[in-house]
Amino acid sequence: MGGDHAPQVVIAGADMARARHADLHFLLFGDEAAIAPLIKARAGLERQAEIVHTPDRVEPDAKPSQVLRHGRKSSMGLAIEAVKEGRAAAVVSAGNTGALMALSKFVLKTLPGIERPAIGSLMPTRRREIVFLDLGANAECDAENLVQFAVMGEVFAREVLGIDKPTVGLLNIGTEDLKGNDTIRQAAAALRESSLPIEFRGFVEGTDLTNGTTDVVVTDGFTGNVALKVAEGTAGLYTHFLRQAFKSSFLSRIGYLLSRGALNTLRQRLDPRRYNGAMFLGLNGVVIKSHGGTDALGFANAINVAVDLVQQGTNQRITAELGKLEDEVIRGLKARAS
Amino acid sequence: MGGDHAPQVVIAGADMARARHADLHFLLFGDEAAIAPLIKARAGLERQAEIVHTPDRVEPDAKPSQVLRHGRKSSMGLAIEAVKEGRAAAVVSAGNTGALMALSKFVLKTLPGIERPAIGSLMPTRRREIVFLDLGANAECDAENLVQFAVMGEVFAREVLGIDKPTVGLLNIGTEDLKGNDTIRQAAAALRESSLPIEFRGFVEGTDLTNGTTDVVVTDGFTGNVALKVAEGTAGLYTHFLRQAFKSSFLSRIGYLLSRGALNTLRQRLDPRRYNGAMFLGLNGVVIKSHGGTDALGFANAINVAVDLVQQGTNQRITAELGKLEDEVIRGLKARAS
Repeated sequence: MGGDHAPQVVIAGADMARARHADLHFLLFGDEAAIAPLIKARAGLERQAEIVHTPDRVEPDAKPSQVLRHGRKSSMGLAIEAVKEGRAAAVVSAGNTGALMALSKFVLKTLPGIERPAIGSLMPTRRREIVFLDLGANAECDAENLVQFAVMGEVFAREVLGIDKPTVGLLNIGTEDLKGNDTIRQAAAALRESSLPIEFRGFVEGTDLTNGTTDVVVTDGFTGNVALKVAEGTAGLYTHFLRQAFKSSFLSRIGYLLSRGALNTLRQRLDPRRYNGAMFLGLNGVVIKSHGGTDALGFANAINVAVDLVQQGTNQRITAELGKLEDEVIRGLKARAS
Repeated sequence: MGGDHAPQVVIAGADMARARHADLHFLLFGDEAAIAPLIKARAGLERQAEIVHTPDRVEPDAKPSQVLRHGRKSSMGLAIEAVKEGRAAAVVSAGNTGALMALSKFVLKTLPGIERPAIGSLMPTRRREIVFLDLGANAECDAENLVQFAVMGEVFAREVLGIDKPTVGLLNIGTEDLKGNDTIRQAAAALRESSLPIEFRGFVEGTDLTNGTTDVVVTDGFTGNVALKVAEGTAGLYTHFLRQAFKSSFLSRIGYLLSRGALNTLRQRLDPRRYNGAMFLGLNGVVIKSHGGTDALGFANAINVAVDLVQQGTNQRITAELGKLEDEVIRGLKARAS
């Protein structure tokens, strides 16, 4: 029931996701009266879907604290509960991000060794796709959080993206050791001294995010959220100016018509729907957040991300790596701090 | 002597700046043997320029602390000294940013009421150009710093951009009052309660930077530096993909040729050289930092920014506004904090 165009987009997206994963089974939490007719119209989906009627829903502007008090029986709350009880392998929602994170933490708990989950997403670069986290779950982070995010991002890049030895960078305002603030300098020292098999490349800058300098870029949720939205905004601005440029003369209109095929390829390449499906990493269960304004194709992509995470056993791998981390890096950090 | 292509770019840029401001007079600090032949080749510039031979220069990778100890007699140090002594109205440099800020603070001091200067720049948006600060002078800021940045940005937008009642936003990860961290919530409260004639619009997000939602966007130097570089990187990525798209087929190559004029207009509109010339706001003197990798056109633009700031008496206006601020907002902040 979450997102700007629910439940239509969710149902159409689920139907589309079946194209890539024929054996999916869906539990659809929400208002049966709204969902049932949409399912009926899709025979293929109807055979693989089950409606769990849930009259309550989380409002888009509800505060996490309110949702924790009153939202446990909402469609969002019960969908997360299904993951906890093993009736679902993952939950995908286009609803209220803060509520989804708060309920997920409360119901599923974090993985052993993780203090706070992070929101991660794939980003397009000049090289290949990279993993960027945290995108806004934690407005303030300490060094230990950042080290944990680095481990989670690295495991994700290795297991889900299939990169052999993923490189990891910490986002900073310069690449020299002295740049930034104490928190990221401590996190960098911990990662540098660690014997974990992480290819830590030190500090990276804002331009490295799109250059694809490292396979994983780690930052706190404040900086990550701003960076993600600035990237979205700049791409939108560029598209806006490009459209104006093509409309500006008769010749350029003809030029546009001739280049249309190539420009569509460009559009697809930067299509935000391709990157839809932010991962809540560090939870004891797979939770994927779809953009609230996406369409069926974008929602289907978020479902695909969930399937990838489940099939690759990403959480189990993160737990294993964090077991080693706990024994080592975190102790080092604590020793330095005291 | 600063930047990737000094002194050639600096001299050619100065020559170009004369086109807009015919009555400029330049003091050129640096190695006379390198500069003199370049000046000789430009009769117009030669009449309006004077070389101050300075054998020492600040190295691009020198640390601010080293420069404060040994860099006072460098070309950068003496150029700033000339502003202090009233022999120059402004200093423009393409050299080491940290060194320029450290020397400027040491020699010129900050304006009354300003604890820390900020780096501000113009940014292109869907609407009109906006002022964005701090771009990296202060990796960590308190609420008082942010309030001072808001005042400086507002005065700049009013006096230099000529905007009647510039609107001001604080960069955050959401627009609701509870988003972000204590520091920006305190700064927002201080600006909201202030009786200063500032059109404060509360929190803005990363996408608002390119939408041009407010005329001034204020943030700490860490977030601002990352945001600026992510915007640069994303524009570069888009250009890269666009070039690939046009090259991808015979038809799209023809399309490119027909659209070339319009695409050049687009390129000019987003040309980073147009936005070259970051302002060190809050100093008792006008200091402009040019991008180190810019060309003559970019450097000329940085000189133009310096001329604008001097002609509009921006520093005097900032001082006047901050006088009111000191009496009011800062006291409120201190009362809340204690």
